[in-house]
Amino acid sequence: MTAANSGHLVTAALLVIGDEILSGRTKDKNIGYIAEYLTALGIDLKEVRVVGDEESEIVTALNALRARHTYVFTTGGIGPTHDDITAECVAKAFGVAIDHDPRAVKILSERLAQTGGEMNEARMRMTRIPAGADLVHNKVSAAPGFWLGNVIVMAGVPTIMQAMLDEVAPRLKTGVRMLSETVRADCREGDIGTPLGEIAKAHPEVAIGSYPFFDEKRGPNTNVVLRARDQAKLTAAKTAVEEMVKRVRAAL
Amino acid sequence: MTAANSGHLVTAALLVIGDEILSGRTKDKNIGYIAEYLTALGIDLKEVRVVGDEESEIVTALNALRARHTYVFTTGGIGPTHDDITAECVAKAFGVAIDHDPRAVKILSERLAQTGGEMNEARMRMTRIPAGADLVHNKVSAAPGFWLGNVIVMAGVPTIMQAMLDEVAPRLKTGVRMLSETVRADCREGDIGTPLGEIAKAHPEVAIGSYPFFDEKRGPNTNVVLRARDQAKLTAAKTAVEEMVKRVRAAL
Repeated sequence: MTAANSGHLVTAALLVIGDEILSGRTKDKNIGYIAEYLTALGIDLKEVRVVGDEESEIVTALNALRARHTYVFTTGGIGPTHDDITAECVAKAFGVAIDHDPRAVKILSERLAQTGGEMNEARMRMTRIPAGADLVHNKVSAAPGFWLGNVIVMAGVPTIMQAMLDEVAPRLKTGVRMLSETVRADCREGDIGTPLGEIAKAHPEVAIGSYPFFDEKRGPNTNVVLRARDQAKLTAAKTAVEEMVKRVRAAL
Repeated sequence: MTAANSGHLVTAALLVIGDEILSGRTKDKNIGYIAEYLTALGIDLKEVRVVGDEESEIVTALNALRARHTYVFTTGGIGPTHDDITAECVAKAFGVAIDHDPRAVKILSERLAQTGGEMNEARMRMTRIPAGADLVHNKVSAAPGFWLGNVIVMAGVPTIMQAMLDEVAPRLKTGVRMLSETVRADCREGDIGTPLGEIAKAHPEVAIGSYPFFDEKRGPNTNVVLRARDQAKLTAAKTAVEEMVKRVRAAL
């Protein structure tokens, strides 16, 4: 797909942290959710990485990604156990101190008073927040995420991550929203590939992707997806694709 | 999780290629499948990256990953349209030529003769294979993937990717298989975090992860997952975790 042009690009990367994703034990549900969510906000998700619970891997990925994008979102590794090392890694990546944060201690203590759990060393781990970070509130289970520089640290459990994303969304810079149209080609991808490439070249500000799928009725079929931030340019490209697929189908 | 030790480590990275994953339009199903598949073979998936259909992104990721791992698997970008640029990017990363491969042309021509499609410029794109690569056969839709150096290039469509993985699996070097045990703690993650950390420290060759989940009956609950390549070490750590959770539950 050729890149669409915009003067208002806001980009993001996602860093998924957790051995359980790499072993296949847990199937990630956050990548697709966050991708769709950011796209709807006009933020371009440009890159995703999944790494295990290893400090050097996490710190290296954080530093690579935060230098390149408006925002870096992370999921996972902020629970109470020894394998939850995300907060430490973020502090290390930024070169700042990390300690128990009084705001986080207060939030967690209040929740524990309600639910009857006791504060202990493990739970205190969840109050360790890098110096200078804002808290990201967690309506589901209280233990907060945080936002430091351009890095937004969220839980790995999907319901908690989603609540945290709703919490930060109103404060995110957003770009011009990407508009999208889909043309169902009713022919095979290989039948339209050549003329579709010509249309893509003639419409450089529209990102055109081609996605084969299996249609119960017709057999192999293709969706052409067009994306642009300018409605007129999008419509022009869509019309060109619609006329092209008509011609191709007539010739088959 | 602390890394488990083995003299027989075979590692892999996965590079998922496609704008449609980053926009959220298509929800990736390959990461979890490949993670589980490689784990069962004794191959450690160490890193996953998702990048868009942009040459510089793909080439950079390929070169970073292939230098670090026994194998790099890629999914996506080998179809017949202008946005399918994976084969070109692999050739570029390796600094080798790319051209229509007579073996691939033969396979595709035979399939088209059966299905009644015609060979054209777009379909010929799918026969472009970097010099020196072996083909990876595709029982589903014929157009092959390929294997060059330590990089294995597969389709993005899950059914086709899965067939290709079955095709290459018998030829992969595999490590000692990771063994795994799960202990259901029947208490909250924060209740066991401190003693679990001590067990993890005392059993450095067993990777211990802690995964909270919501139990309809009990409310917040935790699975402790232990992984090791040595059965005796795994059993010793599992026993330690079982005794610990009994003690913690008795004290609650």
